[in-house]
Amino acid sequence: MKILVQKFGGTSVATLENMKMVREKVRDGLKRCDKVIAVLSARAGETNNLLALADAWSPAPDKAECDVLVSTGEQVSVSLFAMLLKDIGLSARSMLGWQIPIITDDDFGRARILSIDKEMLLKQLADNDVLVVAGFQGCTRDGRITTLGRGGSDTSAVALAAALDSTLCEIYTDVDGVYTTDPNICSSARKMERIAYDEMLEMASMGAKVLHIRSVEFAKKYRVPVYVRSTFSDDAGTLVTQEDSTMEAVLVSGIAYDKDQARVTLAAVPDVPGMAAAVFGPLSEQGILVDMIVQNTSQDGHTDMTFTIPRKDLSQTLEIMENVAREIGADKVLHDVSVAKVSAIGVGMRNHSGVAARAFAALTQEGINILMISTSEIKITILIQEKYVELAVRILHDAFGLDWDLGC
Amino acid sequence: MKILVQKFGGTSVATLENMKMVREKVRDGLKRCDKVIAVLSARAGETNNLLALADAWSPAPDKAECDVLVSTGEQVSVSLFAMLLKDIGLSARSMLGWQIPIITDDDFGRARILSIDKEMLLKQLADNDVLVVAGFQGCTRDGRITTLGRGGSDTSAVALAAALDSTLCEIYTDVDGVYTTDPNICSSARKMERIAYDEMLEMASMGAKVLHIRSVEFAKKYRVPVYVRSTFSDDAGTLVTQEDSTMEAVLVSGIAYDKDQARVTLAAVPDVPGMAAAVFGPLSEQGILVDMIVQNTSQDGHTDMTFTIPRKDLSQTLEIMENVAREIGADKVLHDVSVAKVSAIGVGMRNHSGVAARAFAALTQEGINILMISTSEIKITILIQEKYVELAVRILHDAFGLDWDLGC
Repeated sequence: MKILVQKFGGTSVATLENMKMVREKVRDGLKRCDKVIAVLSARAGETNNLLALADAWSPAPDKAECDVLVSTGEQVSVSLFAMLLKDIGLSARSMLGWQIPIITDDDFGRARILSIDKEMLLKQLADNDVLVVAGFQGCTRDGRITTLGRGGSDTSAVALAAALDSTLCEIYTDVDGVYTTDPNICSSARKMERIAYDEMLEMASMGAKVLHIRSVEFAKKYRVPVYVRSTFSDDAGTLVTQEDSTMEAVLVSGIAYDKDQARVTLAAVPDVPGMAAAVFGPLSEQGILVDMIVQNTSQDGHTDMTFTIPRKDLSQTLEIMENVAREIGADKVLHDVSVAKVSAIGVGMRNHSGVAARAFAALTQEGINILMISTSEIKITILIQEKYVELAVRILHDAFGLDWDLGC
Repeated sequence: MKILVQKFGGTSVATLENMKMVREKVRDGLKRCDKVIAVLSARAGETNNLLALADAWSPAPDKAECDVLVSTGEQVSVSLFAMLLKDIGLSARSMLGWQIPIITDDDFGRARILSIDKEMLLKQLADNDVLVVAGFQGCTRDGRITTLGRGGSDTSAVALAAALDSTLCEIYTDVDGVYTTDPNICSSARKMERIAYDEMLEMASMGAKVLHIRSVEFAKKYRVPVYVRSTFSDDAGTLVTQEDSTMEAVLVSGIAYDKDQARVTLAAVPDVPGMAAAVFGPLSEQGILVDMIVQNTSQDGHTDMTFTIPRKDLSQTLEIMENVAREIGADKVLHDVSVAKVSAIGVGMRNHSGVAARAFAALTQEGINILMISTSEIKITILIQEKYVELAVRILHDAFGLDWDLGC
């Protein structure tokens, strides 16, 4: 039995018209496969409305109760959509997280999937051509409702595909695929036919928010091919899959950027063992995500420690750092919010040297000052002044041959 | 352990302010008992909004999916209210129908409760002072969500009280008790301190819609005393309970009326065995509720058959009756929609004669024509022209000594 998992996001189920388009995608799926599992998000804006309600009614909304509240969003979507499927004579039913069940841990608001009852799904698929599954939600072993956190419906879909050994998971969204960079700032951006899981992970975390990062991790772990495409067109999308030799022939697959960055410097820190732990321990305890870290070579037993964080965490970070500076005897705390990251990503760079050099040369030639650099196996990230970010994206896109004219 | 069940209707949970008043009622309940089970309805208007959504999106909404949809209304109420309880330091959690579970049959949209897991409730009460239970909903043995039909939250509350052997079930609503008649049309109407289950059943079915009729049947069956009172005041309410000798001393306890009536007459029906089945069988099959039935004495082997039905079912009834008339050789079908019922109700009339006569005399004296009469052990119902209904209510209220001045 060939089972296709199709996931539809909030915009796709927002109105009756859109939901009818979704119904056509499901009908098309049934032509290609024996059974379809349609995973739905809450209607666009609904989750935010419910969270706003909780915030308006309670000074500190209980997390477990918040999950009971927001999970109604998907419940509304799946019941309405199951009605629409039955209206055209399809055998279908809705299934909520607890009805399958999709068992998660009890980290309410951002729970992780522990197991999915495959037998129950197969039993229901024996009676129905389509199961309409509520995304984003699960339940604990003792039957409390949980949600998977932002973008959790993508994770639900991939996890269901993995549980059922599906050969494909289709993610329908309001964009039609993954682009080499943001088409809004680089008109020569191209839609990619294929992208490796690792590349997608780097793209996603850098703000190319087509797929939620946890769903890509899940897909990579269970080797589920994920096909990203649009509900609102029949155009080909982008296949997120394992890397192969054709991908490795391309040095850089995409350029990502992130403006939500602030830079903090702890100046003249005594260069003694345990210093890094003293600086980053308190940030980690507060859940502040430190990204790039640079430590200058020690001068006279002192060093400068510079790192980047999301901008929203700046004031809290500065407060923590003032304390740390006093404790460890650092000179002062500096900061800069007008910075941004630009990254070149590609599994191909793993086997090639000179990629970093080419990036630096291209940026320097246009007079863009490089503030910080960090490199990984398949990514080079450069911190620059924010005002140059669009220019830098276009320069790198061109420098690595990603423009339309030079397309591979 | 003394467990108090408190039920709060849609108006009581409609706004944050109202919900804070509900919270005070729960706090007060905890002073009087060890534990509280708060049963909540959906916020006022929410169930109708959700049903309207289903009707707008689907030409014939699937009943099972409708229950998945509308049950979100109570889910929102209970999660928000559990947050509010936790905000003031109470140990509390929400519980949905399937989490207890409240097992029902699979008659979606108007399911009947089959069982309630008492052990689960006691287990949860060991960890929590308050359980906030979603009214109106349950689930089938195989885990599909059901709803209990209109007013089902009252039934949920009484069923929970019965399951837990509670000594009292409090129903908080936007009226402050049960009145001898509708105060809107009879200014001398009095609030009753006590009313017998059977009287309440007759009052409820006649339009005094304080409590849903099924909840009263449930309360009567399991002998659960139900105290009806207002969320928005501290005034004493009305206790619905078993009848006792003090109640029997009162001839008539209340006057009810129902304007939602239509009268249908099948004229000159051949008076042969099986005729009644031929007339009422097809109506029953269509779920049309026939109320009063009068058959005139047979004349020349022919008789007139007259009955009343809810007005909304009139056109369907007439269609069915035209067929029946042809089949059984009746002369014609007549109808009248400008009729209404007025009833006098009281367990005391069981032991007294002359109640009917007193009612007829009072109405006739004021020139009100009596169209049909039906009597039961504790009720006399009189069909009159609709335009006289308010006048008739006031006449009977006065005739049976229910007015303030004459109050017993």
